[in-house]
Parts: sequence; C-alpha cells; structure tokens
Amino acid sequence: MNTTEVARRCAEAMLAKDAASRALGIRIDIPEAGEAVAYMTVRGDMVNGFDVCHGGLLFTLADTAFAFACNAYDNLTFAAAANIEFIRPALLGDELRALAREDYRGSKRGLYTVELRNQREEVVALFHGRSASRGERLL
Amino acid sequence: MNTTEVARRCAEAMLAKDAASRALGIRIDIPEAGEAVAYMTVRGDMVNGFDVCHGGLLFTLADTAFAFACNAYDNLTFAAAANIEFIRPALLGDELRALAREDYRGSKRGLYTVELRNQREEVVALFHGRSASRGERLL
Amino acid sequence: MNTTEVARRCAEAMLAKDAASRALGIRIDIPEAGEAVAYMTVRGDMVNGFDVCHGGLLFTLADTAFAFACNAYDNLTFAAAANIEFIRPALLGDELRALAREDYRGSKRGLYTVELRNQREEVVALFHGRSASRGERLL
Amino acid sequence: MNTTEVARRCAEAMLAKDAASRALGIRIDIPEAGEAVAYMTVRGDMVNGFDVCHGGLLFTLADTAFAFACNAYDNLTFAAAANIEFIRPALLGDELRALAREDYRGSKRGLYTVELRNQREEVVALFHGRSASRGERLL
Repeated sequence: MNTTEVARRCAEAMLAKDAASRALGIRIDIPEAGEAVAYMTVRGDMVNGFDVCHGGLLFTLADTAFAFACNAYDNLTFAAAANIEFIRPALLGDELRALAREDYRGSKRGLYTVELRNQREEVVALFHGRSASRGERLL
Repeated sequence: MNTTEVARRCAEAMLAKDAASRALGIRIDIPEAGEAVAYMTVRGDMVNGFDVCHGGLLFTLADTAFAFACNAYDNLTFAAAANIEFIRPALLGDELRALAREDYRGSKRGLYTVELRNQREEVVALFHGRSASRGERLL
Repeated sequence: MNTTEVARRCAEAMLAKDAASRALGIRIDIPEAGEAVAYMTVRGDMVNGFDVCHGGLLFTLADTAFAFACNAYDNLTFAAAANIEFIRPALLGDELRALAREDYRGSKRGLYTVELRNQREEVVALFHGRSASRGERLL
Repeated sequence: MNTTEVARRCAEAMLAKDAASRALGIRIDIPEAGEAVAYMTVRGDMVNGFDVCHGGLLFTLADTAFAFACNAYDNLTFAAAANIEFIRPALLGDELRALAREDYRGSKRGLYTVELRNQREEVVALFHGRSASRGERLL
C-alpha cells in the first residue's frame, strides 16, 4: 500500500468504531496522508442558547478532522491539546467543512492546523491541535 | 436581585434555548456569579474510535460551563477562544463534572479556567477560555 | 505607495522606536504586507540554566516577527495573545529566523502563524498570535 | 531536606547558569515547591515601538517563573508549550511580579498558571505553561 492507502485504511478502522462522529452526522475524506476533511451540517439539536451552533460542536468537528489527519500513519495517536479561535457563528443548516493539515510531525508529537469554513467559504474557526503517539500500531 | 440571583436568571434564560446542551444531557449549577458547574454522563453515542469519550464532547462540556460562567452578569457574552489539555480519557458511563471559574474580567474580555473531573475526582482535562462581551443585555 | 511600500514604511517607523528588539540584535525583513521575517543570533547573554537559549527569547523573536506582520496596514495593532510550542532547543551561536504570515484578518482581530527555524532549517518553535487593532493610524 | 529546601536548591542550581535571566535583571523567590515568584523592572532597553515593554519580555518573565516552579522536584523539566493573554501594557519603570503555581503534575506533563502583575497589583498578563520531564535529576 502507498501512504494514501494506509491513511484511508486507518480512517476506515477508526470510523467503524466512532459512534460519536456518526451521531453528529460527520463525514470524512482523506485526500492524502496527513490531511483530512470532515463535513457536518448544523442540525436543530446542535444549536445553543444564542441560536447558533454550540461552539463545542464546532470544536468537535475540527477535532475529528485533526484525529483523522494525525492517525494516518498506522501509529496510534491521540489529541493531547488544542486551541480554537471562534471567528464567526455557524447557523442552523450551515454546511461546515473542516480541513486539517500537518504543520509538524516528530517521533512523538505532531502539530496540526484545522480551518473550519461554511458553505460560503467564510472562515468559521481556526483550530490548532497537538497530537501524541503511543508507539502502537493502529491497524 | 443579588448577583447570584441575576446569574441564575441568566442561566435559566440560556438553558431554555440551548438544544445542544440538552441533547447531550448536560445539567448546570450556578453556585454564584462567575462560577458554573456542568455535569454530563458519557453515553454510548459519545464514544469515539478508541473506545473513549470523543475529545470534542469533553471540550463541549467544559465550553458549556464556561458559557454559563461568563454570562452571569446580564451582559451578552460569547466564547471567543479556548484551549484544552486532555489529561486522561473519560470512559463510557463516567460521570463528568466541569467547574468553571473566573480568572479575569475586564470591560470586554474575560478569562476563565474550567477543570473537568470524573466521578473519582481525577482531572480529565484543563480548559482555558476567553470571552468577549457585546454590550447587550441578556435578560 | 503600494501595499508592500506601506508595510515597509510601517516597519521603519516601528523599528526606529523599538529599543527592545535592537538590544536583542533582531533584524527585520518585510517581503510583503502581512509577512515579516525576524532574525536573531543566540548570544551568551541569551542562554539559560540548561545551556540553551531561554524560551522567552525564542518567543520574543517570534512575537517581534508577528508584530511587524500585523502592523503592515498603517493601522495600529498590538499582540493580544499568543501560544508557542517549543520543538527543539536553540544553542549558543544558532542563527534563528522567524517567518510570520497572516492566517486571517478581520476588522479588529488578526491571526498569524510564526515558524521559527535555525540555520539548518530545523523547526525550533511554532507560534500562533492573535492581534487586535485600535483603529488608529500608525504612520 | 524537605520539599521546600529541595525546591530552593534546584532554583540555586538553575540560577547559577542562567545568564539570560540575569541579563534581564530577573530575581527569583521560591515560597514552596511548585511555586515561584519572578521579579523584573522594565528598563529602557525593554521598551518597544509603542513605548511599552516588549510583550516578548513579559512572556520571558512569566516563562522564567514557570521554569523555576516546574523544576522544584529535582527532576529535569523543560517548557514544552505556553500561551499568554496580554491584558494591559507595562510601562518603563514598572515593577513586575510573576507568580507561578502548579495546576496539575503527572509523571511526565505539568500544567502551570502564571499571573503577571505590576506594582499597583493590576493584572498585566495571564500565562499558562505545559512542562515535560526528562526523567533525569537536576541536582
């Protein structure tokens, strides 16, 4: 298998067990190893007290893209930390897309950026995640 | 009304509209203005590909406590940014508690810390949030 | 003046008053508006108790590049927050280069990434900054 | 030796080699293990283009307090990451005090908060640091 095929096999293995992402209707694309795109449509049960998508669910979408990007190498990796800047609200019905890419990958630590955009290509949030590897295989 | 009563009235107004927190089974307590406690039990639809609670939902619980802590003053306030350190996994059935407290509050910006613990009082995550105020009343 | 010329004029105006950056021997290049490169050589008075460059001075170099990148538009802007991941130590004599680029710029808030590398092109630190504008002219 | 004596011995060992902190005139107090206070007066060579203390040097003061707080256990520890919120400027002549305290300490990772205040007890910056331990002795 080439690196993209390994990345996609890792994603399939993760998705099969990921009840949380499925419950939120999140779909995943793996363009290549180290990148992931996660999609989510803002539903009625995702809206908070200010009539906009709960910021935690925006984070969850970004965090999901991050998890699939950093688990592309058949090396079990988890999110160790993340920060997010909320730039503009996401509204009921918005179709969100989180694009994760790798900024740095060392033997244990990885650093990733996730851009979260709506269907009008406006930036909704900017996310930076740090991953840590366990040194175990994923597949 | 004293400050604690105002804080609780703000929380009730927010909760009434907050479908997202309700869908996750989150409950809220307001000990006093500037503090909030949010509770969530890890359900089967919150677990991710590594058999632990999705990190995004841990963030969501912390973010919810943060939102209720910073909206205690009848001054509409939103989450502008946050960072989280994931310390130990939360497992299916764990009863989580997020305690938010105010570190700083200026005219526009507020800074909050949220400690996320499980039913054994172990720290699950540490969250820091920055709020921004719109200068509008909440109630 | 075109945008690059404005950016360079802003940089000259800032540098003329910036005793702190001069004291650290920091030099600045402005490739274009929204980008800045800052250079610093690790001196004997920059080394800390572990025989490596004080992390605070690595931050200072990155923060300087960030300040020059976000003040390119003749709109007085300051650093509101930043985070840094320290990836590898910088040693006495290392020639460091901080490259700042703009990720997002709204009416008030800007988000920037700074990569800090040594003379062997190895990544020393990754920095993310948030700027806030005062709505005053710089020149 | 009790834990406070160990912490102070570690601090003396670090200070003896720390040219960078000495060059900035930083003084250190160790109230007890896991806490450190760092003091710095804003000098003419610390001021930047906006006539206020360079944010990087505010970070450096906080980072120094953090380094002394997390190296209190005779276990060589370094700063792995940090974030800072700049709240109000520090001016020429201001006497700054950075108080670092431990929020969490595991076998490898520690989390610390540093409050930076001026001589009027106003908050200048709020800093959160993450430390990583090498498993080597410091003394």
